[in-house]
This record gives sequence, structure tokens and C-alpha cells, in this order.
Amino acid sequence: MKTELGRHVILELYHCSPTLLDDEAFIRNVLAEAVRRANGNICGAFFHKFNPQGVTGVVLISESHVTIHTWPEYGYAAVDIFTCGERMDPWKACEYIIENFKPLNFNALEIKRGLLPQGRES
Amino acid sequence: MKTELGRHVILELYHCSPTLLDDEAFIRNVLAEAVRRANGNICGAFFHKFNPQGVTGVVLISESHVTIHTWPEYGYAAVDIFTCGERMDPWKACEYIIENFKPLNFNALEIKRGLLPQGRES
Repeated sequence: MKTELGRHVILELYHCSPTLLDDEAFIRNVLAEAVRRANGNICGAFFHKFNPQGVTGVVLISESHVTIHTWPEYGYAAVDIFTCGERMDPWKACEYIIENFKPLNFNALEIKRGLLPQGRES
Repeated sequence: MKTELGRHVILELYHCSPTLLDDEAFIRNVLAEAVRRANGNICGAFFHKFNPQGVTGVVLISESHVTIHTWPEYGYAAVDIFTCGERMDPWKACEYIIENFKPLNFNALEIKRGLLPQGRES
């Protein structure tokens, strides 16, 4: 048996509103609230708006990171939610992001990061 | 057939030197040089050193992001290299990071992000 140091949710949002995917303030607010609902602690947040379209951003948290990159022209956003520790639940952040971006389709996959042989983690 | 918007390399570094994994300046420099060698364009870089140990950091690039989280106590680092576009090769960044962190073991996995039906991407 192995235990993991981190949990990483790879979230693919398809067929979102292009307007929302190009709205930096909306995206910032959704990510910050998603981190709060998942019990994360924000260390910093950095966003960049591309010309003519698209937003990229990262929220650095004590428990690792949340990132987003949007392609409004395809209605697509790539989101990563990487957490460590027992306190933060990446799926709570994931649910809040999905509720707010309202994709017609999405895919979410959890990858366990930092697998240690059991007994080494304590 | 589908084509992808992004390429995401999930890199797990095991059995690294705890001293290197706690050296924020070293980590910053390696990530910045890795991005340059892979033809990336840095928009910003943000790092945080934990007390008593561990470093977390993100390099925001025009082509998406590179992140790292280190656990010196386990000799482990979690690295993500997410790129888009033809110009940047995430595996060149990956190779440079491995060369410099010198893990005794590592694992690297590429995930294609933003799969669109062929014909929609142009």
C-alpha cells in the first residue's frame, strides 16, 4: 500500500460561454471563492488577460495551487486543482467551478501525487 | 481523430537532495532556465518558502504554466509543465529539470488537454 502527499484534479470544461471565459474579474472571483469553499488558504493570485482573448491565472495556496487557462474561441477552459493535507478537499473547489462556468460537458480526473510507501509519510 | 490545445507533463521527482528541494533560489533558477530552453515566454514567477521547509512556486508563461511543490523531508517534488502551441516543447523543460534535480527515481506522464474534434481547432 502507498499513500499520497497530494491530490490533483485535472478538470476540462467544454462548451462554456465565451463571454465568461474572457472575463478576468469573473474568473478571479470564482477561483478565489472555490478555494475558500474547499478550505484552502490563498498565498497569492496572478492573472493575465490575452489580446484578443483568453485568460490565464494561478491561485497559489498553502496547499499547492489552482490554475486556469481559457480559450473563449473554443468555449474551453483547462483547470487544475492541486491540494495537499487533510483539510482541503479539491472536489469542493471543482464543484463550485463547474456550477459557475456551467460547461455543457466536462471531464474531471484525480491523480494522486507523491506516492510514498506506507509508513514513510508519518 | 481529435487534436489537443495543450500538453501537460506531470512530473514526479523522488529521492532528490533535501537541501536542493529547500533552496528557493536554486528552484527559481532551474524553472526559469527550463522555460527558456523549451522556448517559453515568462509572464511572471511567484515562489513561497515554507517554514520549517518546502518551496512552492509557479512560473506563469504565455503558453500556460510551470509549477513546483517540494517536500524536502521526503526528497520529493511535484512538477507540472503545461504548454500550448507548437513552439514550446514541455519535454525539453522536463529534461532540464530532471538533469538539475537529479532524482534517483522519477515518473513523467503527458496528458493532452482540450481535446477538440478535428476541424474545430483551425
